[in-house]
Amino acid sequence: MTDPVFEKLRVACDSGVVTVTIDNPPVNVLDAALMAELRLLLSTVRDDAGAKVIVFDSANPDFFKAHVDMSLIDEPHAFDAIAREVPAGLNVFQALGEMVRNLPQVTLVKLTGVARGGGAEFIAACDMTFAAIESAGLSQVEALMGIVPSGGAMQYLAARMSRNRVLEIILGAELFTAREAADYGWINRALPRSTLDQFVNTLAHNIARLPEGVTSAAKRVLPPADHMGGFLREEAEWARLFANPAAERLIRGALAAGAQTVDGERQMEALLRGLSSGHATTPSDKR
Amino acid sequence: MTDPVFEKLRVACDSGVVTVTIDNPPVNVLDAALMAELRLLLSTVRDDAGAKVIVFDSANPDFFKAHVDMSLIDEPHAFDAIAREVPAGLNVFQALGEMVRNLPQVTLVKLTGVARGGGAEFIAACDMTFAAIESAGLSQVEALMGIVPSGGAMQYLAARMSRNRVLEIILGAELFTAREAADYGWINRALPRSTLDQFVNTLAHNIARLPEGVTSAAKRVLPPADHMGGFLREEAEWARLFANPAAERLIRGALAAGAQTVDGERQMEALLRGLSSGHATTPSDKR
Amino acid sequence: MTDPVFEKLRVACDSGVVTVTIDNPPVNVLDAALMAELRLLLSTVRDDAGAKVIVFDSANPDFFKAHVDMSLIDEPHAFDAIAREVPAGLNVFQALGEMVRNLPQVTLVKLTGVARGGGAEFIAACDMTFAAIESAGLSQVEALMGIVPSGGAMQYLAARMSRNRVLEIILGAELFTAREAADYGWINRALPRSTLDQFVNTLAHNIARLPEGVTSAAKRVLPPADHMGGFLREEAEWARLFANPAAERLIRGALAAGAQTVDGERQMEALLRGLSSGHATTPSDKR
Repeated sequence: MTDPVFEKLRVACDSGVVTVTIDNPPVNVLDAALMAELRLLLSTVRDDAGAKVIVFDSANPDFFKAHVDMSLIDEPHAFDAIAREVPAGLNVFQALGEMVRNLPQVTLVKLTGVARGGGAEFIAACDMTFAAIESAGLSQVEALMGIVPSGGAMQYLAARMSRNRVLEIILGAELFTAREAADYGWINRALPRSTLDQFVNTLAHNIARLPEGVTSAAKRVLPPADHMGGFLREEAEWARLFANPAAERLIRGALAAGAQTVDGERQMEALLRGLSSGHATTPSDKR
Repeated sequence: MTDPVFEKLRVACDSGVVTVTIDNPPVNVLDAALMAELRLLLSTVRDDAGAKVIVFDSANPDFFKAHVDMSLIDEPHAFDAIAREVPAGLNVFQALGEMVRNLPQVTLVKLTGVARGGGAEFIAACDMTFAAIESAGLSQVEALMGIVPSGGAMQYLAARMSRNRVLEIILGAELFTAREAADYGWINRALPRSTLDQFVNTLAHNIARLPEGVTSAAKRVLPPADHMGGFLREEAEWARLFANPAAERLIRGALAAGAQTVDGERQMEALLRGLSSGHATTPSDKR
Repeated sequence: MTDPVFEKLRVACDSGVVTVTIDNPPVNVLDAALMAELRLLLSTVRDDAGAKVIVFDSANPDFFKAHVDMSLIDEPHAFDAIAREVPAGLNVFQALGEMVRNLPQVTLVKLTGVARGGGAEFIAACDMTFAAIESAGLSQVEALMGIVPSGGAMQYLAARMSRNRVLEIILGAELFTAREAADYGWINRALPRSTLDQFVNTLAHNIARLPEGVTSAAKRVLPPADHMGGFLREEAEWARLFANPAAERLIRGALAAGAQTVDGERQMEALLRGLSSGHATTPSDKR
């Protein structure tokens, strides 16, 4: 793995621990280029016997991954090349999650900032997440754009908490703190930011040092759940909602109001909610 | 929906949020009349496109729903009319829960007081529950009456916590505080009573304002679990136990000792436990 | 049940509550003799209509069950006699767990000390566990011996928490405190040591006093999950890893370094990790 391949990822290896630092300024949106790099990285690392653990973090301490690039509404074919590569029955975001979930290595997320939408889904596809109490945040904001998540969020969340809490996350569409996320089982643990680095580093190296074969054996004893039925449902519902005028208007409105800038992303739920409530009763919202 | 139809429910609508306030003094027992009104309300509201969210609360801040009316032991045919209306394979309490679980709307419970037995089961059938730390309580007290819950409790609870904790709730038969219930995943959150109204009100209106179609899409992506096998098992076990002399003696004894009065219901577990332990070793308890 | 039958268990009965105190100094390893006594006890008590609740605790407040006897690496046939008695498709440790899980009685664990490996698996097979905040600990240390647990750990844990947290427990291989274990749903509750005795005693006797038939009915309404597929996977992976030179070297190394003594067991994870990291990169680890 040579770094120059990647423009939006920094990759470092140390004693079996591969640290992947996402660096896509200003707020690490998940755009087609970042996805292509992540796919390249994952398809390379899965066959690297020297890589035991992969730690994902962010070059921007405030944003892990903002969410999927909303400006793609003007580039509907941006993911076409990737879409041709993914397994039948999966969209490109589900396929990214499946690549992560089916790695033989253990994947850890060190979360100091916020991750929303497709960024939160990427995290939920990883094996373990540890987040800073003071600053981390997770949110599925799709409902405020008039759509449902379609990169696996409801499947992943329902595997770790009650449907009651999944519905609150999806329909309440608020930013969860690290403590709230840990209480709901969304993440493994919320930790003081001062200890987060050391905790994740120790865990990663402890796992990387395990005797040969233990990690992959454990993953075979407890394989990832099969979410295909849910993936198909969420893609169908997403496509139906995305075809509504409301979705396009909300996404364009959000971009115009500051989404994908640092300031706009700091209050993304409020920004979207403002747009949503202002238009919720206009006739064009009705189907 | 015109209020005069209901004697035990107060119904108010505001911007897509329907608030249903249960008012069946003195302690909101779930009797045949209250169930009939709830069924009428649910069958009406499910087709009301203007209703997006339903919030259930209580006119009595100390009691949400005491439990199923125990005096029905003298009116074994009280639910016969309803029983003829419900789907095959469901008893009337399971059928009430299924009506709630299959609504296209989102159902929220605002819990300031206690709910036991069938009242707790009704809450568990709703999508989300938020409870006051200082005053709310949940309990499945059926074991202390010599029976098991048969309105879905064990199915609903097993979908949100480990079997180990379900067995503690059912067989321990203690009143859980809001914090304990949140820790076990029985409810979504325990909140200070001073913030409960605003939290639930904000969430309800935020969901009601979501763009058209999002809520029902999310519910289709994550449909309610199928509990039919469990419903059949719990009804069979309930019927077998209810036929025992112990159940009748405990239910009559509890009524004589103050059940279904405000004072008796404040210490319902202790009241029942007194009866149960006093008789537990008499020959008539043995089968 | 007459006590003289047992050398490593103390058995006491009181009003339907059978207390089983494990006493296998110095650290309560699960050896063939202790397993034989546990099997005898369980096969006797399951037909004892007077026994309603079984409480497991330890004569040694610091150790509930250290783990499976590691010195058995020199006695590969120690469990042969038991293996001939167990149901097809189960190894002897899985079979012990299935005996516990299929009891008609309710099983409670009162945990003041630590339990690792097969000791932790035994606890996870019981219906409910209550642990002392100040002193209890749970750990699956098998990964540090170069193997995966094969007495049901991953199956039992995955039924009560997300896969994400199970992988952390198995691959992180750290000692969990009672609070951490309760937060993850590994146990029912973490309680102050000063209240643990009374809490478990009250719960046990409350359940024992329930009207006849309630406990077994509840267990029939919510039967134990079927883990046969997982049991087969974990046994296959365990056998493959146990055949590696690494496992034998780590187990012998641990015994030489103080495992199964009180001092060694106080820091068992550190003891094993020292051995593991020291050898992790030698060629003989590779397959």
